[in-house]
Amino acid sequence: MSTYRDIFKWGDKRETQVDKGTLNVIKEKFGLTDQDFISKHLLGDQEVKLNVKCNLSQSILYEFIALVGKENLETDDFSRANHSYGKYYADLLKLRKSLIPTPPDAVVYPRTEKEIKKILAICTENNIAVTPIGGQSSVTRGVETPKCGISLDLTKHFNKVIEVSEINSTVTVQSGMLGPAFEDFLNNYGEKYTCGHFPQSFEYSTVGGWVAAKGAGQASTGYGKIEHMVLSLKVITPSGIIETKTYPASAQGWDLYQTFIGSEGTLGVITEVTMKIHKFRPDNTKHASFIFKNFASAVKAMRTVMQSGVGVPHLFRISDPEESEIAFKTKDFEDTFADKFLSALGYKSGERCLMFVAVEGDKSHTNQVIYSIKRIAKKYNAFSLGSKPTKKWLEQRYSSAYLRDPLMDLGIMTDTLETAVMWDNLIPLWRNVRKYLKNRDKTVVMVHISHVYENGANLYFTFLSPMKKGDELNEYNEYHKGIIETILENKGSLSHHHGVGRTLAPWMQEQLGEESLSLMQTIKNQLDPKGIMNPGNTLGLKP
Amino acid sequence: MSTYRDIFKWGDKRETQVDKGTLNVIKEKFGLTDQDFISKHLLGDQEVKLNVKCNLSQSILYEFIALVGKENLETDDFSRANHSYGKYYADLLKLRKSLIPTPPDAVVYPRTEKEIKKILAICTENNIAVTPIGGQSSVTRGVETPKCGISLDLTKHFNKVIEVSEINSTVTVQSGMLGPAFEDFLNNYGEKYTCGHFPQSFEYSTVGGWVAAKGAGQASTGYGKIEHMVLSLKVITPSGIIETKTYPASAQGWDLYQTFIGSEGTLGVITEVTMKIHKFRPDNTKHASFIFKNFASAVKAMRTVMQSGVGVPHLFRISDPEESEIAFKTKDFEDTFADKFLSALGYKSGERCLMFVAVEGDKSHTNQVIYSIKRIAKKYNAFSLGSKPTKKWLEQRYSSAYLRDPLMDLGIMTDTLETAVMWDNLIPLWRNVRKYLKNRDKTVVMVHISHVYENGANLYFTFLSPMKKGDELNEYNEYHKGIIETILENKGSLSHHHGVGRTLAPWMQEQLGEESLSLMQTIKNQLDPKGIMNPGNTLGLKP
Repeated sequence: MSTYRDIFKWGDKRETQVDKGTLNVIKEKFGLTDQDFISKHLLGDQEVKLNVKCNLSQSILYEFIALVGKENLETDDFSRANHSYGKYYADLLKLRKSLIPTPPDAVVYPRTEKEIKKILAICTENNIAVTPIGGQSSVTRGVETPKCGISLDLTKHFNKVIEVSEINSTVTVQSGMLGPAFEDFLNNYGEKYTCGHFPQSFEYSTVGGWVAAKGAGQASTGYGKIEHMVLSLKVITPSGIIETKTYPASAQGWDLYQTFIGSEGTLGVITEVTMKIHKFRPDNTKHASFIFKNFASAVKAMRTVMQSGVGVPHLFRISDPEESEIAFKTKDFEDTFADKFLSALGYKSGERCLMFVAVEGDKSHTNQVIYSIKRIAKKYNAFSLGSKPTKKWLEQRYSSAYLRDPLMDLGIMTDTLETAVMWDNLIPLWRNVRKYLKNRDKTVVMVHISHVYENGANLYFTFLSPMKKGDELNEYNEYHKGIIETILENKGSLSHHHGVGRTLAPWMQEQLGEESLSLMQTIKNQLDPKGIMNPGNTLGLKP
Repeated sequence: MSTYRDIFKWGDKRETQVDKGTLNVIKEKFGLTDQDFISKHLLGDQEVKLNVKCNLSQSILYEFIALVGKENLETDDFSRANHSYGKYYADLLKLRKSLIPTPPDAVVYPRTEKEIKKILAICTENNIAVTPIGGQSSVTRGVETPKCGISLDLTKHFNKVIEVSEINSTVTVQSGMLGPAFEDFLNNYGEKYTCGHFPQSFEYSTVGGWVAAKGAGQASTGYGKIEHMVLSLKVITPSGIIETKTYPASAQGWDLYQTFIGSEGTLGVITEVTMKIHKFRPDNTKHASFIFKNFASAVKAMRTVMQSGVGVPHLFRISDPEESEIAFKTKDFEDTFADKFLSALGYKSGERCLMFVAVEGDKSHTNQVIYSIKRIAKKYNAFSLGSKPTKKWLEQRYSSAYLRDPLMDLGIMTDTLETAVMWDNLIPLWRNVRKYLKNRDKTVVMVHISHVYENGANLYFTFLSPMKKGDELNEYNEYHKGIIETILENKGSLSHHHGVGRTLAPWMQEQLGEESLSLMQTIKNQLDPKGIMNPGNTLGLKP
């Protein structure tokens, strides 16, 4: 029996393994007892049964089958349900409540670009919505299908590396390739390379998804966001194919390929991406970890590193006091001798902040940069914790995402929101969003900075709070809305790397201005005149 | 008496000072005698007299005067002639031949954004072409006025720094500010900063021109091209104002501000730019110079530096064998003891290549990077020349541009063309374009690489050749066309940093594809529905 639970779970064993340290923190923070761990909330373990029939006519389905083959078209309830949502907190709530009002009519797995072109032609002619699908890890409702239609899943056939150029230090890859397979391929190719892009969703996201949602990875401070990595791409739009040429840089009018980075499936289907690669030399990597007396001094040290011309680290991360406190708690560090020692030195729980650093590249360079960062950290009264905490963090860096489902089973809301902000607004934004989040009773708010620039950084908010049982969805939406408004009031961007999707679309006009949004709409209309591509207000664009 | 010569000359004293070394090289290369230096060619010293009247009606002119004031409108022959061309070789030829078939009808110097908005409204209503004007240093016919209309000159009133944020490391500046004033302001502000952008045209170009033409400066290997420096901008288009917000990075849909970087005045008038700044610490800068046995090994060393993760230099430059030979000749280095010594070591004239390097930033960093580069250069059998040659080169780095006019006086054609290319195509492109250029008798071809990336670099061709007297323009155009075609055949971009203008527009469709150009045209139509902005095929866009 296939259940809703089979859909929202990643199917990853880390989802079921909540370590003792974390369990104890959860018990303490939310006042739970062992008894609570027995009664579970909204398990979603019913069999998947859709109330909505496939709207596509038999003749259309035959057309698709003739094109891609029977084995590449799915219309059964589970497959359709399985392509209805991403991994947004509210998506999971809906699945747990068996709510799938608008599943796709069919899931299609195209094998060639020619097939995609024909599918888009059929869909344009018949007004069928098309949603390009990668790893489905969207946390912004980017892959939802409010107009049903087809989910065009690229992970089955568009998942190969097309070409590596070692002399150019580039790779051309199909958009449906998943992170681990891609990175593994590069790590073992020729002189050994890395793509340098490690988003939290790395294990279940695709290259095309990274580009479409304008993502950032954990090494972005050194390697840049995805828009800094892409050199060219190929997009099949309902109006034709746009394929840009590969140059290290150019001045041939404005950079048109940038239009598709962040287009979130609304303009066409990205099929190929050519991006930079870098030598993979993990033995050269230098790690450092620090503890600062408070958030302000950690941020100042971070900013000083970025603005001093000492070179930049690849991983650069600060946890705010509450996130640092919880990190210590889950590692059973509290009340140890080391903890008391740090407290005595003035690094007090509730104020102190952790910083993680990793620098990649040639040994001469990693040595110099890590040394310079240590020097700057010291100036801001940091206490060095050595390389171990950062290494430990790196080992389990993707795991925290898998905690969400066991927490939801316990009736605990867990979500994240993130923004980019210039340095001068960072501390006020952090303070005010935390304040808003804390207005809710018993809410744990963990904040980190994980993508750092000369001119500012991101702020990443993770919040855990007991659900208001019964009305989980509405009361969450209300809370969520307030967070976004607080971010915008404090001069944060709508997003730094999660993208816009349908969750943030309602704010796009206010945020970008009517002129800008209208220009985006014009571009959309040109490439997708019937509005079939990912309709329903992703990017705030009309279908 | 105001002459055509007053227009094409920069008015810079370096134009009249050709040093003895350079003179000797010119004499040798072109077989000139002292006698030739007396008879001058196409001096352009006639009084400026236009054959084309101002087409604007009195009532329109009154409207402009009422708006900007009498002192900010010019309709006299000299002012109009003075705004007819940029600094492209053929522009200078035309001026020397008193050819100005389509001067602007008037030159307008707006004082406020409100005035620009109203001017664009008047011009849209009356179908008057508008050409935004900065330093007029375009070498691609980017500021020409084939439909006459008005030249909207921003250098008079839009030339101030609006705001510096030291905490954010940003500056907001008006688009008509010239390079030297801008850099000087930053060098003396607060903790002292640099903009990091030093194009060859630096002394006579504006921030708005840098952005509009998508330029690159001599320190671009470290600081990036202008599109890597800009964080946000404000553009007044005939359809409305687009003002983007300032974030270190974001994921709010695709980056719309990128659309205006490289828009070359075809979409609207850029009035303000917010860009990154960097600490100005010239005392920390480390310089190095090398000589390599041949071009291939110099290029390999350069590529190795960029792909090794040792950190990057800011200035990074190789001169090819012919450019290196001429550099040595003009410095009277040939046949000196040092020359003979180098030759004996295998660094032979006609094969050897110069490399210049400068690294900026914190001392710890500049030391490490310069050391790493020395190590890599040595691996590729470079001979270190110490820091002096690079320092000397930096001192006179803008001067070579001013040689063009004295050379043209002698009947010598002098022009430059540039491209960006991936590493794997660099040597073939260099060889084939040189071969094409050399098909012309007695042609000196100097090539350098001056903007370097992990994935490739630019190639910059400077060529000197005796004019075919009488038919200078046609035969030059024919020659020029062949260069562009050879570049494209060898997988170079149409331009790396000069932009497209009217010289390269005819190749845009072939180069970008019909779909891409059509999308650009759609964007143009939305922002400038009557096609008044810089009409005449800049970017290949229809007026």
